[in-house]
Amino acid sequence: MACTEFELIERFFNAATRPREDVLLGIGDDCALLRVPAGCELAVSIDTLVSGVHFFADADPQALGHKALAVNLSDLAAMGAEPAWVTLALTLPTADELWLERFMAGFAALADRHQVQLVGGDTTRGPLCITVQAHGVVPQGAALRRDGARVGDRIGVTGSLGDAGLALERLCAGEPLDRSLRARLEQPEPRLAAGIGLRPLANSAIDLSDGLLADLGHICQRSGVGARLELARLPLSEAVEKQVKMRCEWSLPLTSGDDYELCFSVPPQCCAQVEEVLAGEVGGCTWIGVIEEDQGVRCYGTDGRLSRAVQGGYQHFRDAD
Amino acid sequence: MACTEFELIERFFNAATRPREDVLLGIGDDCALLRVPAGCELAVSIDTLVSGVHFFADADPQALGHKALAVNLSDLAAMGAEPAWVTLALTLPTADELWLERFMAGFAALADRHQVQLVGGDTTRGPLCITVQAHGVVPQGAALRRDGARVGDRIGVTGSLGDAGLALERLCAGEPLDRSLRARLEQPEPRLAAGIGLRPLANSAIDLSDGLLADLGHICQRSGVGARLELARLPLSEAVEKQVKMRCEWSLPLTSGDDYELCFSVPPQCCAQVEEVLAGEVGGCTWIGVIEEDQGVRCYGTDGRLSRAVQGGYQHFRDAD
Repeated sequence: MACTEFELIERFFNAATRPREDVLLGIGDDCALLRVPAGCELAVSIDTLVSGVHFFADADPQALGHKALAVNLSDLAAMGAEPAWVTLALTLPTADELWLERFMAGFAALADRHQVQLVGGDTTRGPLCITVQAHGVVPQGAALRRDGARVGDRIGVTGSLGDAGLALERLCAGEPLDRSLRARLEQPEPRLAAGIGLRPLANSAIDLSDGLLADLGHICQRSGVGARLELARLPLSEAVEKQVKMRCEWSLPLTSGDDYELCFSVPPQCCAQVEEVLAGEVGGCTWIGVIEEDQGVRCYGTDGRLSRAVQGGYQHFRDAD
Repeated sequence: MACTEFELIERFFNAATRPREDVLLGIGDDCALLRVPAGCELAVSIDTLVSGVHFFADADPQALGHKALAVNLSDLAAMGAEPAWVTLALTLPTADELWLERFMAGFAALADRHQVQLVGGDTTRGPLCITVQAHGVVPQGAALRRDGARVGDRIGVTGSLGDAGLALERLCAGEPLDRSLRARLEQPEPRLAAGIGLRPLANSAIDLSDGLLADLGHICQRSGVGARLELARLPLSEAVEKQVKMRCEWSLPLTSGDDYELCFSVPPQCCAQVEEVLAGEVGGCTWIGVIEEDQGVRCYGTDGRLSRAVQGGYQHFRDAD
């Protein structure tokens, strides 16, 4: 089922990113051959973006190339892994060179910024669909996991919450959208340095793809604990803060997805160190709550009461359901 | 963009295959964590099957689950790698439980047979599209590659050629198709043991996905050599042999794809050992030609002349174009 024009694309892939020393064989054989450093574990994550589901069919291909890679690198960030290699399976309705060139420009710019090499690709004809697998390395036993949160841990997040959700709302409504808010949706920055910095300090971590309540819910469920969130502490951009006040509810920062910030839990004695480590990183660090014994995620208002944070009722999540 | 029914599928993935000791963390976190044995390289390959392009929309899901994994394991076989882990990105129009159960049954049966664990999955809603990445390990510097063929090497293949192509023709024409021929198209067996057996003996190898001429062309192009094929030596099933005779041309065994046999080149002094190693393996071994200095792949008939092997002209491939 080979198709010459698609084969050509694969050759184009080969030159897309800068070569790494630990790639013994890149694109062009049946497999890529890679060297994992001694004393390290391999961390892998695969994600698919589908046209019309995860992005608009007419999305800017350069931004899409960035995002397809970013959401995978974000998974590596959440484990505290150092990114290394990536594979790309691209299903395209036509071999549109201009589209592809821009897509790969976005993809490669982010890859190069993090010294990631594209080592394998498959291009097929069909409805637009992008699958990326990211590969990283992490010292033995050092990876950040979802199941390590302990009662008393403080809950932190990088960056601000709800910006991608607000940008999506505006795009869907055809409302004007400033460049920086649009970038929060279309070109998220994977918090790789933050993840590596957190690695020796945090008990658990996750990246925020589905929204804070759902993703913190995953940590709680996997760790067999619960969480108390202080709404007043949530880090909000001016734009999101304005919406929260206007709407008198918190769904933007609590349940909208695609922020790709990190959420993590840290034993109290390590918090100062975490602040120091993350002070120099884009996204910084804000403490938003604490891990508790009672399962579920509870949101508290400035009055110290369990809050009706999101339209429709109290937020009292169990297992993120 | 999470969807509860799709999240449930991912949990179902978790139990699909038998656990391996070198999987430190499987499905359910941001990444899987894997241990590559000391002294080994990691071999990875990613492939996508698209509905309507690589398979019929109404294909038997169990066979499809088998094939989606088999085509990737076949890439590991071609490198002489030992299969270890696999990830699966599945885009489905609906979360059809029955379809999925059968798909995973086919996938898991093949995975278990080769001690492969499913360690990562992503399920999304969209047009049916299946991407699998296979991960294997191979001792340092020992992998079989496409670029190692040397002048004088004998060219060998496992199994028989053209069966999958004939099965596809019959399916497309609505003609009757016996079970074993259908299996050659829908449930190819990756030649993993053959690949591992060939590893210390062969100079080059590839798996036959695009047809013998194209794939042997890849070996020749990457190795900077050419090949002479003896048509009379091509291993054919009775069904394919009958068609070749009837049609007076060889396109079935030469240019039809999807056979997933191995094609390899071996220095003459190692041929006896290869025969011995492959004698016990399904697919066996047949010598079909020799590597020459002149670039391109040339087919010779029983009369010793360059043959008009395929309709449309002489087969004299350069760079498989």
